Amino acid sequence: MIQTDICIIGAGPVGLFAVFEAGLLKMRCHLIDVLPQVGGQLSEIYPHKPIYDIPGYPIVKAQELIDNQMEQIKPFAPTFTLGERVEKVEKQEDGSYIVITSDNTQVHCQAIAIAGGLGCFEPRKPELEGVDTFERKGIDYMVKNPETYRDKTLVIAGGGDSALDWTIFLSDIAKKVTLVHRSDSFRGAPDSADKVYDLAQKGKIDLLLSHNLLSVHGNGSLSQVKVANKSKEEYLLDADYLIPLYGLTPKLGPIADWGLNIDKNAIEVNTFDYSTNVERIYAIGDINTYPGKLKLILCGYHEATLMVQSAFKYVYPDQKLSFKYTTVNGVHAF
Amino acid sequence: MIQTDICIIGAGPVGLFAVFEAGLLKMRCHLIDVLPQVGGQLSEIYPHKPIYDIPGYPIVKAQELIDNQMEQIKPFAPTFTLGERVEKVEKQEDGSYIVITSDNTQVHCQAIAIAGGLGCFEPRKPELEGVDTFERKGIDYMVKNPETYRDKTLVIAGGGDSALDWTIFLSDIAKKVTLVHRSDSFRGAPDSADKVYDLAQKGKIDLLLSHNLLSVHGNGSLSQVKVANKSKEEYLLDADYLIPLYGLTPKLGPIADWGLNIDKNAIEVNTFDYSTNVERIYAIGDINTYPGKLKLILCGYHEATLMVQSAFKYVYPDQKLSFKYTTVNGVHAF
Repeated sequence: MIQTDICIIGAGPVGLFAVFEAGLLKMRCHLIDVLPQVGGQLSEIYPHKPIYDIPGYPIVKAQELIDNQMEQIKPFAPTFTLGERVEKVEKQEDGSYIVITSDNTQVHCQAIAIAGGLGCFEPRKPELEGVDTFERKGIDYMVKNPETYRDKTLVIAGGGDSALDWTIFLSDIAKKVTLVHRSDSFRGAPDSADKVYDLAQKGKIDLLLSHNLLSVHGNGSLSQVKVANKSKEEYLLDADYLIPLYGLTPKLGPIADWGLNIDKNAIEVNTFDYSTNVERIYAIGDINTYPGKLKLILCGYHEATLMVQSAFKYVYPDQKLSFKYTTVNGVHAF
Repeated sequence: MIQTDICIIGAGPVGLFAVFEAGLLKMRCHLIDVLPQVGGQLSEIYPHKPIYDIPGYPIVKAQELIDNQMEQIKPFAPTFTLGERVEKVEKQEDGSYIVITSDNTQVHCQAIAIAGGLGCFEPRKPELEGVDTFERKGIDYMVKNPETYRDKTLVIAGGGDSALDWTIFLSDIAKKVTLVHRSDSFRGAPDSADKVYDLAQKGKIDLLLSHNLLSVHGNGSLSQVKVANKSKEEYLLDADYLIPLYGLTPKLGPIADWGLNIDKNAIEVNTFDYSTNVERIYAIGDINTYPGKLKLILCGYHEATLMVQSAFKYVYPDQKLSFKYTTVNGVHAF
């Protein structure tokens, strides 16, 4: 069993900053995230996108911000469980909690901070006949290892950044890539769209704009995808793999069953310490809600900071918290 | 008369960040500060000190943070009135305000954000007989221009960073520097203290630890300072200048008379939008108070952000605010 002071669910920018503020108060943190890497949405969805509203950064790329935050918390040596989803929390007689993940990792802690962002991301699936039959048998909703697709015939579907970026990337690896998009223009970065148009013009990919996926076919595993154009003409594309990249839908997941007050998929907290209605459980960042709430990273930083001040009493019940400035005291490693 | 949307009183980090968040919502800001430069305490009191608790910055020097923030708000072209103290606010019939400074600068605005930090800083003065007589006639509470002291005989008093730093700096410029400190150890940075001990050992300064200032003497202007050691032995030091650096005491100043609810030198606000009890007047950063308040820069950033969302209704009464992410929309200059 992992022992820690505060168990933070979600290793995005807000969860990571909580480690820093907890560290200043000599509290240790363990972070759990369903994604295989730290950084939350920033690393998973838009690592290369610039952010302009982090105070003191006229511009910073999402992944760069995460890298800097990891550097910032290094003195406090946080521990991580990545690629596992938190399934349940068990209250102990002394008030502490055991947090249990999908892989049965157990974390014993004095307080829990839910910093789960928009929740667990699940891929949006196309509504196609037979789609369930071929999941993991030719239909993939995420590109985990590009090598899987070497010398294969791929149909990628979607019009956002993921669809564009993976089309560009996999065009070098796969035998053939066809990009199918229902609209005649892309939602993704114009620069990426230009690259895709260019690849199509050079014959390196097939680009089917204003086309819809209709159905999937195969014998045991996927072999063909049926599409239709604007004029409802249908035809079949050969496909070892269909990769629908329609974005991720956030789900609150098992957290919804912990007895927390929930309002429209967000956890209700007060603005005194961002505690929930359940003692010792806090919610910070995009996953919480309160009057005036803005889903901004910088607001989550503030929430994380006030939260740890409140959690202190559970970790050090006999001590008085004394608040110190880093300009005066610096940062002392564990 | 200067016309703006939001008049921000105080050009420290929090006031500066409010400009950015206001700019995203197409609101212009004018900032007023009693100090002659932007940056508040960070630029005035500890420009070279490292800060460790700005999210995403493992370490940043105070002045560097301010410089970055100035860069960040450049697209929104804020205007400034520096070196003037806000004296009063006059409510107009249409609800807007005119803000008036000590030099009678007038700013017409739809909303006011008080981001005054700890207030107007006034130097802590030693309680000495005759001290008022020699103010500006040999007694200076701040070092404005070091050249004033070239080839002069100085007595510096104090044990904090200012006293240490100026002793080190002026030891190269003045004819003679004596540092008088009532205790036998310094409060300032150990590194600076070491430098001061070193200068004393080399005979470049006189160091009088465990000494108290007793009185000041002169004919029209200062010429001598009387001090006493632990054993109450008194003696006179020659001095063209006495520079007591006992720190700055924050004063709320004229703001205290504007009808705002004040609690222990801080302005009471709610955490929904950081508004005060007076309509259209907000307070953000170290100058405000609410349950759970922490006087941290990062908290002020959050407060500034929620504040401008609320002020929007006074600037654009007929428009609905639509909230946008900079990762998606970027930043559009005025």
